[in-house]
Amino acid sequence: MTWLELPPDSPFGITNLPYGVFSADDGSQVPRVGVRIGDSVLDLAPVLDDPAFGEPSLNAFMAQGRSRWSEVRARITELLTAERHRRAVEASLHPLSGVRLHLPFVPGDYADFFGNEYHAANAGRIFRPGAEPLAANWKYLPVGYHGRTGTIVVSGTPVTRPRGQRKGPQDSAPEFGPSRRLDFEAEVGFVLGTGSPLGTPVTVGEFAHHVFGAFLLNDWSARDLQAWESTPLGPFLAKSFATSISPWIVPLDALEHARISPPPRDPEPLPYLADVDKWGLDVALEVRLNGHVVSRPPFATMYWTPAQMLAHLTVNGASTRTGDLYASGTVSGPVRSQRGCLLELSWGGAEPVTLADGSVRSFLLDADEVTITATAPGASGARIGFGEVAGQILPPTGS
Amino acid sequence: MTWLELPPDSPFGITNLPYGVFSADDGSQVPRVGVRIGDSVLDLAPVLDDPAFGEPSLNAFMAQGRSRWSEVRARITELLTAERHRRAVEASLHPLSGVRLHLPFVPGDYADFFGNEYHAANAGRIFRPGAEPLAANWKYLPVGYHGRTGTIVVSGTPVTRPRGQRKGPQDSAPEFGPSRRLDFEAEVGFVLGTGSPLGTPVTVGEFAHHVFGAFLLNDWSARDLQAWESTPLGPFLAKSFATSISPWIVPLDALEHARISPPPRDPEPLPYLADVDKWGLDVALEVRLNGHVVSRPPFATMYWTPAQMLAHLTVNGASTRTGDLYASGTVSGPVRSQRGCLLELSWGGAEPVTLADGSVRSFLLDADEVTITATAPGASGARIGFGEVAGQILPPTGS
Repeated sequence: MTWLELPPDSPFGITNLPYGVFSADDGSQVPRVGVRIGDSVLDLAPVLDDPAFGEPSLNAFMAQGRSRWSEVRARITELLTAERHRRAVEASLHPLSGVRLHLPFVPGDYADFFGNEYHAANAGRIFRPGAEPLAANWKYLPVGYHGRTGTIVVSGTPVTRPRGQRKGPQDSAPEFGPSRRLDFEAEVGFVLGTGSPLGTPVTVGEFAHHVFGAFLLNDWSARDLQAWESTPLGPFLAKSFATSISPWIVPLDALEHARISPPPRDPEPLPYLADVDKWGLDVALEVRLNGHVVSRPPFATMYWTPAQMLAHLTVNGASTRTGDLYASGTVSGPVRSQRGCLLELSWGGAEPVTLADGSVRSFLLDADEVTITATAPGASGARIGFGEVAGQILPPTGS
Repeated sequence: MTWLELPPDSPFGITNLPYGVFSADDGSQVPRVGVRIGDSVLDLAPVLDDPAFGEPSLNAFMAQGRSRWSEVRARITELLTAERHRRAVEASLHPLSGVRLHLPFVPGDYADFFGNEYHAANAGRIFRPGAEPLAANWKYLPVGYHGRTGTIVVSGTPVTRPRGQRKGPQDSAPEFGPSRRLDFEAEVGFVLGTGSPLGTPVTVGEFAHHVFGAFLLNDWSARDLQAWESTPLGPFLAKSFATSISPWIVPLDALEHARISPPPRDPEPLPYLADVDKWGLDVALEVRLNGHVVSRPPFATMYWTPAQMLAHLTVNGASTRTGDLYASGTVSGPVRSQRGCLLELSWGGAEPVTLADGSVRSFLLDADEVTITATAPGASGARIGFGEVAGQILPPTGS
């Protein structure tokens, strides 16, 4: 029990303790590592004797490895629960409203998966009508691709509508202009704390040894650009203009009570992808568009677990580094209200979505704001909050 | 005319001056920036008063921008030509045979294009027999995708044969094991010295303002993994296990005499891809397998220029950073002896290649060594050398 006064159902209680990078309006304004408790941020550098927390990213701390992560988490828990620490710790607490949150880590490589069966099948039906919804490989491996890391931005960063080439099936040639089918994708991301050398795969069972924590990710997508450019090498400019992530990294330790069995798989995964431990996660996402809930995607439905994704990513011997991230792919569920992107929600534009204020969307309009939030079960009935990843669409540059 | 004694046809004469990162066996062994002249490396930190040259990568120097690049090139030229500098400069020359060459820059993001028509059409015929060889988008945009930066290695680094899933058309399910169709891809890479902010495309005309130089790249590819995994998001593990690059970055200024008009395009590229200046490059590549020449791919045949590739990469507003790199895609030509990968040379294994020693290859065997070299025309009949990117195949780990 923390000595802070928190509502009992706070999603940022003592069993969560997500890490981020913040700067306070306190003169120095230097970005440094903090941990969120309730609606406060605890500045870690003054209370923990480790220069890693004075860095402007989580990378130095993450690189210290799992046993150090546990040690620090235990120490922070002690600081926030033992009354004797109260005075010293209170001096390092900042109200959340008074801080600025930054990109929490320096990204290494970014892989985006396609690991949700409902999303993959819906996308197949919409993009390739008449063909089998799932490609032949889909149930054998977590399909994925590499994304651009230099355009990963923290929640709150505006997203400029991209321009590019698009060509409708009836058009004789492509035209160039701002995307008309701009979309969000609600995903969960994972960041590696400790890497692995070239030639040494990370097994499914080693997931928690390497992955530091989880966060929310919006893989903004220009569907018209995507449909035209993706043959045969996959999405490129349709995704590379921006990827937004939430500022708080929820430690894997905080998700212990969210662990569930993944759905049954048929066919049985190959031995290198066989489940070890349970790494399905019962994370409930919610997507709001201009404040109105448009979807509640259930991460529990993911066909491939994050442990399987990392094992696949490295089975060819690819090395990993501190700060490498990967994302689940769009999270969707079996019913319409659980679909994690507008492509699915509006069925490629054929069935526009009506928001609670009566406005109608097939894809995003300029000034639209998308906010993705999530919670997961914590210890003793507590909820673990992920915070949010939000972004507003700006009109294309020059217009 | 340099005061060094160089053969008149040296590909590393005074008009080339490529940059790299080296360490000498001189006690310190600290990696630092050098420039190659003949068979020597000039240590730049002692002769130029700039701490950027004491860094273990070219990034700090590259970030200084085009006018500084010209200034430093002029100064190095002066140091190597004016007799009065000879004594001071000679003290900082290291014989190439006595130094170790390192990865020359810290990679940011890595995009790989598919910009050669002969390669794209051949790959289409082999991977998708019966379909149109070129996808409908191919002549409208430089097709590309993002690769993994953490597995970019310098020439000479051994490459372990990757394992992964593969499935033949007759197989009922995929099997897992070492790739049986391991290949090289001969490409030319380009590295950005100065970046560009989010939302601001780099135009075709701004190419030389951002790109620092060119180098050779071997995009090792596991064709069996690639064929199975690539639907619908493109190549992933088939490429991510290793990408080798040459240690010397040839400055764009050294390639002035190699500039040629690109081939005629039909249809006319969209306005944002229209040629400004001439950025076709007459670079002659050569690929050797275990010492035997197997191909001489002509970069002059590239359909898309590197200036068009960069304009396309950023037209959606994607930002770029110092150290970002992109590659041309496999360079091939109209005749068999110019094909830049074994997939094409052996036509997917149907027409194995016979080497000069009588051995036969469809794909790479363990212990095979692939070496790619290149030269381009320089000033006054000189040749500009790119050096080489080499790598030997090691058997899969554990075998």
